[in-house]
Amino acid sequence: MTHQDTIVALATPSGAGAIAVIRLSGPNAIAIASGMFQSVVGKELAKQKTHTVHLGHIMDDQRVIDEVLATIFKNPNSYTGEDVVELSCHGSAYIQQEIIQLSLRKGCRMATAGEFTLRAFLNGKMDLSQAEAVADLIASDSAASHQLAIQQMRGGFSNEIQKLREELLNFASLIELELDFAEEDVEFANRDDFQQLITRITQVLKRLIDSFATGNVLKNGIPVAIVGQPNVGKSTLLNALLNEERAIVSDIAGTTRDTIEDEIVIGGIGFRFIDTAGIRETKDVIESLGIQKTFQKMEQSQVVVILHEAKELLAKTSELTIEIEKIKNRFPQKPIVVIANKVDTLSETETLRLRSVSQTDIQLLSAKTGQGVEQLKSTLLDFVNTGALRNNETIVTNTRHYDALLKALEEIDKVQQGIDSGLSGDLLAIDIRQALYYFGEITGEITNDDLLGNIFANFCIGK
Amino acid sequence: MTHQDTIVALATPSGAGAIAVIRLSGPNAIAIASGMFQSVVGKELAKQKTHTVHLGHIMDDQRVIDEVLATIFKNPNSYTGEDVVELSCHGSAYIQQEIIQLSLRKGCRMATAGEFTLRAFLNGKMDLSQAEAVADLIASDSAASHQLAIQQMRGGFSNEIQKLREELLNFASLIELELDFAEEDVEFANRDDFQQLITRITQVLKRLIDSFATGNVLKNGIPVAIVGQPNVGKSTLLNALLNEERAIVSDIAGTTRDTIEDEIVIGGIGFRFIDTAGIRETKDVIESLGIQKTFQKMEQSQVVVILHEAKELLAKTSELTIEIEKIKNRFPQKPIVVIANKVDTLSETETLRLRSVSQTDIQLLSAKTGQGVEQLKSTLLDFVNTGALRNNETIVTNTRHYDALLKALEEIDKVQQGIDSGLSGDLLAIDIRQALYYFGEITGEITNDDLLGNIFANFCIGK
Repeated sequence: MTHQDTIVALATPSGAGAIAVIRLSGPNAIAIASGMFQSVVGKELAKQKTHTVHLGHIMDDQRVIDEVLATIFKNPNSYTGEDVVELSCHGSAYIQQEIIQLSLRKGCRMATAGEFTLRAFLNGKMDLSQAEAVADLIASDSAASHQLAIQQMRGGFSNEIQKLREELLNFASLIELELDFAEEDVEFANRDDFQQLITRITQVLKRLIDSFATGNVLKNGIPVAIVGQPNVGKSTLLNALLNEERAIVSDIAGTTRDTIEDEIVIGGIGFRFIDTAGIRETKDVIESLGIQKTFQKMEQSQVVVILHEAKELLAKTSELTIEIEKIKNRFPQKPIVVIANKVDTLSETETLRLRSVSQTDIQLLSAKTGQGVEQLKSTLLDFVNTGALRNNETIVTNTRHYDALLKALEEIDKVQQGIDSGLSGDLLAIDIRQALYYFGEITGEITNDDLLGNIFANFCIGK
Repeated sequence: MTHQDTIVALATPSGAGAIAVIRLSGPNAIAIASGMFQSVVGKELAKQKTHTVHLGHIMDDQRVIDEVLATIFKNPNSYTGEDVVELSCHGSAYIQQEIIQLSLRKGCRMATAGEFTLRAFLNGKMDLSQAEAVADLIASDSAASHQLAIQQMRGGFSNEIQKLREELLNFASLIELELDFAEEDVEFANRDDFQQLITRITQVLKRLIDSFATGNVLKNGIPVAIVGQPNVGKSTLLNALLNEERAIVSDIAGTTRDTIEDEIVIGGIGFRFIDTAGIRETKDVIESLGIQKTFQKMEQSQVVVILHEAKELLAKTSELTIEIEKIKNRFPQKPIVVIANKVDTLSETETLRLRSVSQTDIQLLSAKTGQGVEQLKSTLLDFVNTGALRNNETIVTNTRHYDALLKALEEIDKVQQGIDSGLSGDLLAIDIRQALYYFGEITGEITNDDLLGNIFANFCIGK
């Protein structure tokens, strides 16, 4: 598939910086760039080799717009597989606009979201799941989500799917071939081997489908409900958890990103802290509604952290213990961490008493002094199943892939039932083809405009 | 001057985008980059030619951080004049951080603000006023500020100063030479030529100093005070003025910048609209204070726009006319525009009446329908002296340059007085040297750490 038009977009984040990069891709990328570029040493851009960089000025007729570096990539050796020119200009929003507008006047068209990557996919530079990983990679904000994205971008997931698909395709062809010789009752496809393959595919699919639960939380962050009264120190706790990570970030001035206070990366894993009120018994209707909401948020979260002031825990031990038990009973499967905050305000005797009286395991913490913060971090990390991540196993993170895998498994189950009930080859072949279809949807062998539209609409413009 | 250390910084705006560029500069830039870069085709980065681009992976030991393009620039053919490597990575904040942290571990140090440009200056790639123009260029947000910055960056201003400096230096040397032959009473420096030069320098300095008033407003935007009651339609008017420009911007999705509602570019010139309340007479102390503030803001602005509702102007013509006259009397030199807004709510008869009764020239406008908005734009542009800009004359925009020019003029005036009073050569030479000093300060022949520190502290990190 070839594209007749040349697209342009800003490739770097919008806003002012030292430099910005504007990218042109398409059959006329080099010609259009040449037409607005004046080399400082009189070189003609169009005659330069691929992967070379040239200093010059972007000229709108006689007017100098900027001094830039122009980098040439000749097809197929570029990101998109087309001719590409990258113009590295001074990072003023005004200049970025002027160069893009000039490119449009010279015959480019504004790229749509993800169109560079779409072209890379259509030109066979990457498969669909790799293209999707590019967007994930750009959005990655923790070591875990980054590792998942880069693994997928480098083809780990596609390769696994691709291999199964080829083996299955091979069997499908053999079985379909048998149909042509139906009267001779031959078996090109060894039924034992086929059964083994179906068993293996079933196992792999189940493993991949199971991995989605882990993949999804690693990619999007682990939801943690914090239960506690307003003045119990929730935000101080979040800041204490955030502090160390922040220190790292601020070491590298210029890369500091906007911090969303309740999204915190701990040990490379993202945690999303969800603030909820307590669940004290009340006769007030509005407050009961609040309690319902709190329970809903706990339901949606992976871990529940209950936060109390140490002094209050001491004063109302039995009352609060009942409350904690109530939560535990309601969510028997959910990991629950109980924290006594502000332990720095306790006397030594009180601390000892707190340790002894509590029937539940209570973590002593002072968000103010930092005491116990490290322990909470490692407790939270213990709840995350990072085994698969450590072992470099393929982990599914994408809902679209998850859906396709579920459907593929359904079809493979039908194939298995077919084998068990001695179904004829022609009917088996239909189910196999259907399973192949879903495999193909993941890597993009099977695709359609709607699907592509949906996928690339989530990209930023310029990628 | 050579730098022993290698610096690293993010060169593109922070935040997520399709790509980000991380820049290394210094004697070990290529070696450090090579140590963390694994070419996809097994090339060794250090052996590649200058101005070439290479695809590979940034590796932290065995861990893949990202797939990147590495561009090599070998000294002196780079921005800084040193060895430079630019790593174009996926634009995730996480990846940016990881690569920068890895560079630091491999022996880079974090660049300080403007350090790349500082090194470019120290390595003779540009003079000081050109380096300052780089920061102006990045900050430029209108056609006018952009043109001024690019003119200065390309050396227009430096050349003019440089030429005068050389001629003056030449005379200074001749006059000083005469001192060596004092007893022979020779005149190497032709006094007529010298007088002509001093006259010419005086003229040029005065022109440049005068240009600062224009340059300053073109660079920073023209302050316009809008006087009007809260509900008179100020923000609707600002939006109407902004709308067209916005339409252009939103055509180019991805380059949309955060709009500061009260900074609007009209015809390539920036206008800063300053909101002020009306100045109705009042006995309320607090309100009188408000009026004082309004007058202060008018004082600081270049143009005053008085906004009234058309219907109110009709109903209270005499009262409002008095108010308008009061402002005019207070600022007899300041251009004042009176606008009757919401004329779309007037009947035809009322419109006619409004046109006839007003003693002052009132512009009829409807921010809602857009009527009269174009006229207001051209009225505002008429107040801006863009002659010098159009004629491509050198315009001073930098307060530091302005100060140095004022001091140089002071010294040149002393030289002139010296000539007039028949001052001896040795005393003349002292004043000439002092003038030369101030010329040199502009272009950076004369400099010191404090001065450089002040200048480059205003740069962003990564430039």
